[in-house]
Amino acid sequence: MLKGIAASSGIAIAKVYKLEQPKVEIVKKEAVAADEVKKFNDALEKTKRDIEGIKERAAKRLSAEELAVFDAHLMMASDPELASQIVATIENENVNAEYAADQVSTMMVAMFESMDNDYFRERAADIKDVTFRLKCNLLGLRIPDLSAIDEDSIIVAYDLTPSDTAQLNEYAKGFATAIGGRTSHSAIMARSLEVPAVVGCSGVLEAAQDGDLVILDAVEGNVIVNPDAATIKEYEAKAKAFAEEKEALKALLHAKSVSTDGHEVELAGNIGGVKDVEGVLNNGGEGIGLFRTEFLYMNADHFPSEDEQFEAYKEVLEGMGGRKVVVRTLDIGGDKKLSYFQFPEEMNPFLGYRAIRLCLDRTDIFRTQLRALIRASVYGRLCIMFPMIATVKEFRDAKAIFEEEKANLIAEGVQVADNIEVGMMVEIPAAAVNADNFAKEADFFSIGTNDLIQYSMAADRMSEHVSYLYQPYNPSILRLVKMTIDGAHKEGKWTGMCGEMAGEPYAVPLLLGMGLDEFSMSATSILKARKMVNSLSKKEMEKLAEEALSLSTAEEVLELVKKTVD
Amino acid sequence: MLKGIAASSGIAIAKVYKLEQPKVEIVKKEAVAADEVKKFNDALEKTKRDIEGIKERAAKRLSAEELAVFDAHLMMASDPELASQIVATIENENVNAEYAADQVSTMMVAMFESMDNDYFRERAADIKDVTFRLKCNLLGLRIPDLSAIDEDSIIVAYDLTPSDTAQLNEYAKGFATAIGGRTSHSAIMARSLEVPAVVGCSGVLEAAQDGDLVILDAVEGNVIVNPDAATIKEYEAKAKAFAEEKEALKALLHAKSVSTDGHEVELAGNIGGVKDVEGVLNNGGEGIGLFRTEFLYMNADHFPSEDEQFEAYKEVLEGMGGRKVVVRTLDIGGDKKLSYFQFPEEMNPFLGYRAIRLCLDRTDIFRTQLRALIRASVYGRLCIMFPMIATVKEFRDAKAIFEEEKANLIAEGVQVADNIEVGMMVEIPAAAVNADNFAKEADFFSIGTNDLIQYSMAADRMSEHVSYLYQPYNPSILRLVKMTIDGAHKEGKWTGMCGEMAGEPYAVPLLLGMGLDEFSMSATSILKARKMVNSLSKKEMEKLAEEALSLSTAEEVLELVKKTVD
Repeated sequence: MLKGIAASSGIAIAKVYKLEQPKVEIVKKEAVAADEVKKFNDALEKTKRDIEGIKERAAKRLSAEELAVFDAHLMMASDPELASQIVATIENENVNAEYAADQVSTMMVAMFESMDNDYFRERAADIKDVTFRLKCNLLGLRIPDLSAIDEDSIIVAYDLTPSDTAQLNEYAKGFATAIGGRTSHSAIMARSLEVPAVVGCSGVLEAAQDGDLVILDAVEGNVIVNPDAATIKEYEAKAKAFAEEKEALKALLHAKSVSTDGHEVELAGNIGGVKDVEGVLNNGGEGIGLFRTEFLYMNADHFPSEDEQFEAYKEVLEGMGGRKVVVRTLDIGGDKKLSYFQFPEEMNPFLGYRAIRLCLDRTDIFRTQLRALIRASVYGRLCIMFPMIATVKEFRDAKAIFEEEKANLIAEGVQVADNIEVGMMVEIPAAAVNADNFAKEADFFSIGTNDLIQYSMAADRMSEHVSYLYQPYNPSILRLVKMTIDGAHKEGKWTGMCGEMAGEPYAVPLLLGMGLDEFSMSATSILKARKMVNSLSKKEMEKLAEEALSLSTAEEVLELVKKTVD
Repeated sequence: MLKGIAASSGIAIAKVYKLEQPKVEIVKKEAVAADEVKKFNDALEKTKRDIEGIKERAAKRLSAEELAVFDAHLMMASDPELASQIVATIENENVNAEYAADQVSTMMVAMFESMDNDYFRERAADIKDVTFRLKCNLLGLRIPDLSAIDEDSIIVAYDLTPSDTAQLNEYAKGFATAIGGRTSHSAIMARSLEVPAVVGCSGVLEAAQDGDLVILDAVEGNVIVNPDAATIKEYEAKAKAFAEEKEALKALLHAKSVSTDGHEVELAGNIGGVKDVEGVLNNGGEGIGLFRTEFLYMNADHFPSEDEQFEAYKEVLEGMGGRKVVVRTLDIGGDKKLSYFQFPEEMNPFLGYRAIRLCLDRTDIFRTQLRALIRASVYGRLCIMFPMIATVKEFRDAKAIFEEEKANLIAEGVQVADNIEVGMMVEIPAAAVNADNFAKEADFFSIGTNDLIQYSMAADRMSEHVSYLYQPYNPSILRLVKMTIDGAHKEGKWTGMCGEMAGEPYAVPLLLGMGLDEFSMSATSILKARKMVNSLSKKEMEKLAEEALSLSTAEEVLELVKKTVD
């Protein structure tokens, strides 16, 4: 039995499919340039076709956001800079194509990796992935095709790249990797695909061989290779129980999210693109509490036009069939950059020029998005919210631009819904503290806990040195959440939450007790949250929340909640 | 009449002393290396003596913090790297010393300027300053000696460098510079030296010549060159009135800081070193509300020892003669780096590893400081406060280390005061929101408004792109201040404020109304604040504050305060 980290819950029993990448060995040779250039062009074309093929197959299972990695790879494979440098190296040095490709890719990867910027470091990973495929094609090496697996398997690998996970089909019953943690790419994808996964399981490559039977216990984080009959029986029972619980949750698909004493709340899903709508509906989401529109911008090589945006918003609104859709306007900047827009150099980008600050400065970008949204409003129930609002003046300015564009569209004869709600994210401490005043002007709030915690604690959660301060259960955070909800209710407005916290088992009781109206989370968490809400008494949770709000530390709060609901 | 920015209030009428730096022209020549090396060594020695001389003369007027620039220059002039590179250039290329010095300094400046780090950029300025002096000495050019001015003058210059302002003596009645703003170095120094200054006054170099009579109206920000008799008379009257008001403030030197209805508060000074104590006492400070100890660390090339720190703390406590001294433990990190300590690379250093976070991690550094403080406690009335506290657990951990070291010292037979107060900065939103719980454990609070505003608004005030969000009068900020004060009072504890806001004319009425107990500010603001407090009714300010706390925007608050007190 090998220990690892349970990254995506579940139990699977199947044969091992060991994913091993071909070993690329580059030898420098003298060669006829014209021949090598032709070889290179053919291999590059094949590389593009390979990626397109993988993307096509993956499109059946993945959302637009998850497919974005292939667009990045295709863009890279079509980059004239990459091709022209490789051709120049072949022609100038009269060397073989694979050697030239290796030289250029090594240089480009080093250049991008040396940049102090996450965007470029991700590009470095893309170049590696694409040029690896290119070199394999040049050398006639076969890259294993995970999408071709046709019997139930558990994938065992050193790690899974984005293009690997995108190729997993219905026969991939789970996977175990030698490296990685709960937040590594492969772990996130496993949860999204709802397959069990154990990551960071060192020794698994040595212990498990093709064809071995393994039990993947991604509840406890164990991998058992070639188990005896009794163990198999034991885990078959466990797997059955797990599946039954999952099935039982399905019974809640169309149930109301109502407490034992009759208080109803709304459970919604967070999405990053059009494709994610289906997942929300399949998991019983009553609406969309957060549509992150930045993916429309980050997966493009230009600012998306009004029409391009309109189509996306319309599709989401129609897909939700009249259920509420909360769209967040462009939240770019900080660690989210665009390849086609130059952000100012700032010492602390998380405290800088981003989101609504950028939109109020570059109103041209903002107006395009608002017009697209307002035009789409007739296709469903649209709520618009502005990110990173700190002052009432910013909200007023943003809302005024919305009203102007709405009036413009009406004057142009465009049909516009008359029930668009205009609200704001509460993710900056100043907004939470002044919530009662904001509520006089905003139609609703949505609390973004990730940023709210980060700013309230003055701690960048990306920095390992201060990550201990990321404390959702700290009484300070709970008090800011309470101020926000109370501020909204005082003016008859509603408050949602769209941060990670909204779906956490120990947070739901507190949030219910504090009066949160809408909980928005990743689709796969919705049914579990509904089961929880259905089992709790609002009155008792009010008492629990009141007590929690008077405590001093996060540890004390967690202890209290566990004592009450476990 | 020329318009500029009034950077330091006051009116002066005197002859122009035009500060013009010599023009350094470097010509490359072949030369005998041995001769040039000797020439270089002589010039370098003279450069060091020059800087030491300036520092000595400046020490009569400047505080330790302000003198630090010369220590940096001396360190640079004694840097073996600088000298050895110049000597190597002379010897390898057989060139003249000034050419070698110019080559090496240009290269080093470029290197330091390219680094994405304020600490190194300041070092680039130091190298420029020192090597300019070195090259002048090599070329036999005289750098004007401002400290030699012996008749009343108004200095007119393009800009004043730190070593220029440090040389100003009592004959410098004020200065006008062509560039700069309210927060440029020269403006800050003018306020510290209490001489009138107009900065950013373009055209002043062309309009004013040596010996011209000028009126420097640093109340309105005007410079009048060669005024007529009537204008001189008018401004002599204005200058007299200004001086009289200043004199009238002196009458408040030993007065109590008490409102018209008998509510007494404490007005204290912020200091950065031992030398600043005198300024606080001379300006009627009733205590020290903030002793920034990081200057002990930043002006050194090693972590200061327990004894070195003990001497500094003892001197400040003795200097204040039993008045309260609030010492903030090491607040390093963010934009404050040390040459002898490697901070981790972080994307957002303001949200990173700094202050108490560093001290709780590197308890060796923390314990040394606490031991020095506890040992000094018998020489006055010591209050210790921890910076950047976000959670009650952090406060408990820091206080436990303090108690341990106190017990250790007592066990070692060291005399220790039994009335040391242990409190904390409230500069992180989470601390303000949870103040009532913190007040159960801390003896006092001191609100650091600069950081509190920055984090509450999620806006780096160093970034021009979001500087509009630095809003001390925003109702959100006022509410956080109120929560802090109320939290403290509930437990019978006191609250001070040591940010810039504590001395601002429109903030004092609000803070008095909200019940702030101690106002700590730069020494030169204390008497004006006292005059203001003496003229206000606490009861009426309570009403004002209550109304302000209910408003939505900073603009509305400011308007209300102005209407009430102007």
